[in-house]
Amino acid sequence: MALTTKGRATRQRIIEGAAAYLRSDEPAGVTLDDIRAITGTSKSQIFHYFPDGKEELFLAVARHEAGRVLDDQQPHLGALTSWAAWERWRDSVVARYRAQGRHCPLGTLMGQVGGTPGAQEVIATLLNQWQSHVRKGIAEMQAAGLVREGLDPDRVSAAFIAGVQGGVLVLLNTGSVTHLEAVLDTLLEHLRG
Amino acid sequence: MALTTKGRATRQRIIEGAAAYLRSDEPAGVTLDDIRAITGTSKSQIFHYFPDGKEELFLAVARHEAGRVLDDQQPHLGALTSWAAWERWRDSVVARYRAQGRHCPLGTLMGQVGGTPGAQEVIATLLNQWQSHVRKGIAEMQAAGLVREGLDPDRVSAAFIAGVQGGVLVLLNTGSVTHLEAVLDTLLEHLRG
Repeated sequence: MALTTKGRATRQRIIEGAAAYLRSDEPAGVTLDDIRAITGTSKSQIFHYFPDGKEELFLAVARHEAGRVLDDQQPHLGALTSWAAWERWRDSVVARYRAQGRHCPLGTLMGQVGGTPGAQEVIATLLNQWQSHVRKGIAEMQAAGLVREGLDPDRVSAAFIAGVQGGVLVLLNTGSVTHLEAVLDTLLEHLRG
Repeated sequence: MALTTKGRATRQRIIEGAAAYLRSDEPAGVTLDDIRAITGTSKSQIFHYFPDGKEELFLAVARHEAGRVLDDQQPHLGALTSWAAWERWRDSVVARYRAQGRHCPLGTLMGQVGGTPGAQEVIATLLNQWQSHVRKGIAEMQAAGLVREGLDPDRVSAAFIAGVQGGVLVLLNTGSVTHLEAVLDTLLEHLRG
């Protein structure tokens, strides 16, 4: 669908309004009518911008939230070129999820569109981009002679991604960042060798 | 509630029948009537054994499934006293979740009773018991002089728990055990020092 500049802005406004709403509450039972009321849009507008309805809108919101997950870790995640940068990244991840606490907007959205190919693609893309940044950081530390050559950037970056996801999952269940901190610190210690 | 031996057996039969049913299918919309049909029990029987109804029954099934999660890792998990035992444990975890694939019965159950104090207690108990086994294994390896003294069993066992949860979460989304293997192997390498 080709949109005018104004159309793109309206579409983005709907996505951001829906995202803010979903972040502010437990949206387990949220409907398109709720989103219309929050964003001040008509039914015909919603279906103009999201012809497939609720699933398409929710996927757009999920993509938006996935982008925020990475944005919130910047600029550290994109420039893991010193131990100080790794420590700042580690702190930004812990701070982000500590602030988020037991409420995970992306997880809730995935509960609504989870299992669909579109939802799996949003998650897979997020995890791939996330891991690429970490992998690149490890490779750059190796190039600078700060991390031993024998360490496999693919495997260790995958371990970081799994560790963060699991740490956040434990946090969602227990309300504590202990596990998230433990896995990040243990993997960082392994990286330092 | 005090039950006779026969009553306890009936209650257990309902739990196991419901668990098998929930493992075999996507139970997102499962009802008490489905469970009654599967287990051949009457409404009054269900409410005799589970006076609070669906949530109580589902929590009992979740507890049953949580027990299986640990059982499936035995005898390795309970005796992590040599590197061979750690490797067998690692392989049993990967094999268990590879076989389970994208369908997580405990996760689905938690989706139905998630957020309730009862559900959080089931998960917290499972994670605590799981981590205790790993912590004990690390301490025993240290006592035997196989793992360096400087390593903190609390922190590294928490890292293992987070890593496994995250590896399984990625598997549920991508269908691949790559991340689960990566985090287990990286943490084992760290343990070996």
